[in-house]
Order: sequence, then structure tokens, then C-alpha cells
Amino acid sequence: MSQQLLANLALHVVLSPEEQEQVLSAMHRQAVNKRTVLVQPGKTERHIYFVDKGCLRMFHTDTDGHEHNLCFFPENWWASDIASFFKAKPATNTIQAMEDSELCCFTLFDLENLFNQIPKLERFFRILTQNGFDMFQRRVTSNLSLTAEQRYLEFRRHYPGLEQRINQKDIASYLGITAAFLSMMRKEKNL
Amino acid sequence: MSQQLLANLALHVVLSPEEQEQVLSAMHRQAVNKRTVLVQPGKTERHIYFVDKGCLRMFHTDTDGHEHNLCFFPENWWASDIASFFKAKPATNTIQAMEDSELCCFTLFDLENLFNQIPKLERFFRILTQNGFDMFQRRVTSNLSLTAEQRYLEFRRHYPGLEQRINQKDIASYLGITAAFLSMMRKEKNL
Repeated sequence: MSQQLLANLALHVVLSPEEQEQVLSAMHRQAVNKRTVLVQPGKTERHIYFVDKGCLRMFHTDTDGHEHNLCFFPENWWASDIASFFKAKPATNTIQAMEDSELCCFTLFDLENLFNQIPKLERFFRILTQNGFDMFQRRVTSNLSLTAEQRYLEFRRHYPGLEQRINQKDIASYLGITAAFLSMMRKEKNL
Repeated sequence: MSQQLLANLALHVVLSPEEQEQVLSAMHRQAVNKRTVLVQPGKTERHIYFVDKGCLRMFHTDTDGHEHNLCFFPENWWASDIASFFKAKPATNTIQAMEDSELCCFTLFDLENLFNQIPKLERFFRILTQNGFDMFQRRVTSNLSLTAEQRYLEFRRHYPGLEQRINQKDIASYLGITAAFLSMMRKEKNL
């Protein structure tokens, strides 16, 4: 399971075998059951998670108690409430397992130590954060200028194969429409 | 004008006088008139801008040709279409000067060179990107769960003093409401 994490890091930085060892020794493993809540609004998020197996979701609960899915984290995604984690301030969103999942996790303390030991990891997390930024910026612009159908097609491109693993309600919540509307749209448009 | 940029970098990294010199020699200065377009959708964004004086805005143009303000960049903000700049791919948004502005700018080439010369700058841009991420994530959740009035108050907290400098139409576009509704809300609620 560590191989997947190392392969992910290798996307942006080249680590020596010693540096790979340092990363792995700072890492904790965590297996969680479906529906386990990892991050809660109001609590300071102490971990960043790399999804080795399974899938997590991040959602926002509005003042009426409705949940809005912001993001899914299937295999090879890094999950955290970024602002809460890196600034050690209370999270605004919830992160929950959608399936039984296996995670690699790092505390902020461990990660800051790794940044000191292996400064090029800053590069990895800079690029990771840029990609996350890109994704969120696209969500803002998609909500402003794409139709529900276009957003649905974007979701399928963005998360290949995920549709078969999660329920319609969760997809609809991500798209900002009702499950009934999603179902109707798919039938009508033959999607 | 370079002092403001160095003070901004000093928020997250400590640079030696030599390193400060390296940064300044990689930097270009640019003075632009109000309404100058710096980044255009479909074109690859070649610069990242630090606003020394003035204010820029980033907006998205929807398929009906309507502009939606995503972000303002007054003094001491860094402006770029992050994904376009760092990945050298076509921008999806426009960045335009809202006032006559003075900018410090870097090309991706210059910045990548600086990252090699001064690896701790990776740290600065990691943190900068995290903050941008945080801001966009908050915009997504605000749109989902705050009222127009709450979003307006958040705008005022987020951009102190900016309201007096830009027009109501631009604020309304940022909030996702019409200028008439903004004006009515301010009158009714005595905001």
C-alpha cells in the first residue's frame, strides 16, 4: 500500500530511497469503515489523508442541515480540509468515508518535519494545492455557467468510474440538483 | 515598490539580502491603465502578478456573455489564473485592471528558475496557493449556504475598504445578485 503513495509523490518530485524511507516512517496507516467521519466542522483537522483504497467525500452542511457534496476522494486522491489542516484552525466541512477505506495519513507536525528534512516535498504540496485550487475554481465557474447536464458530464470525466460506486443522491448533491432531476435528465438525454 | 513585494514574501519565508536581490532581478514592472486586460480566456497565461498599487478583478464569462466576478486583487494580492499559469494551459477566466495599477510580474520561466535557486520560495507559493484554495472553497460553500446578505458582509470583511473603490455592479456580480437587489438590500437592512 505504500507503493501507491510513493508512485503518487513521484508524479512531481524525485525522491531517493532514503527520502522514500523518511516519508514512509512519518506516515500512519488507518483503515476506516464506511460512514466513518474523519473531519468534523468546528474541529481542527489534524491529518491529511492519501486514499489507498476506498473513497471519501467532503461535504458542507448548510444552516438548514442539508448536506452539499463538494468533492470526492477515490483512490490516489489526497483528502483534507486544506485551510483547516495547514492553518490548524477549525474545519468548515465534513470528510466522511463513502466505502470501507484504507488511508495513509500524516499529521501537520510530521509533514512540517518532512518539509524541513526534504524541502522538495514543498514542491509536491505546492503542485497538489494548485491542482486542488484549479478544481475548485472550475467548480465555481461551472456552477455559474454550465447547465446541470454539462456539470454531470464534467463529473463523469473528472471521476472516471466513480458513478458506478456511489449512489445517485451523492452525485445529485455534488451537482446541486435533486436526485429526481438527475434521474429524469439521464433518462431524457439517454446519458 | 519592491519593498512591498519583499514584505509580502517575508510573511512566509526569510530571504537573505542576496536572495532578495535574485527575486528582484527576476521581477518585471508593469504599469497598466484601468480596463487593461491582462489575461484572456483561451490564451495561455504567461505571468503571475503582484499588485503594488491599484486593483484587478478576475471574472468568468458565461455562455450567454454575462460576466461573473470571481475575485478582486487589490494591493498586496497575487493575481493569476493559477491553473493556466502553472500548467501553461489556456486560461478560462479574464483578469482585468479595475483602476490604473502598478504590478510586479514574473514569468513561469523566471519563477521556475527562482524555485531552483531559492527552494524555500516553493514554500511561499505553496502557502499562497493554500490561501487561494481556502478562499475559493469558502466561495463554493458560501454560495451553497449563505444568504446574499451574509455573502455581502463576508465580502466586506474579506476586502476591507474595497467597497468604496469599485462600483456596485462589480460587487453584485461577485455576490451573484443584481445591482438593483444589492442596492435594495443595503437600504432595507441599513448596511
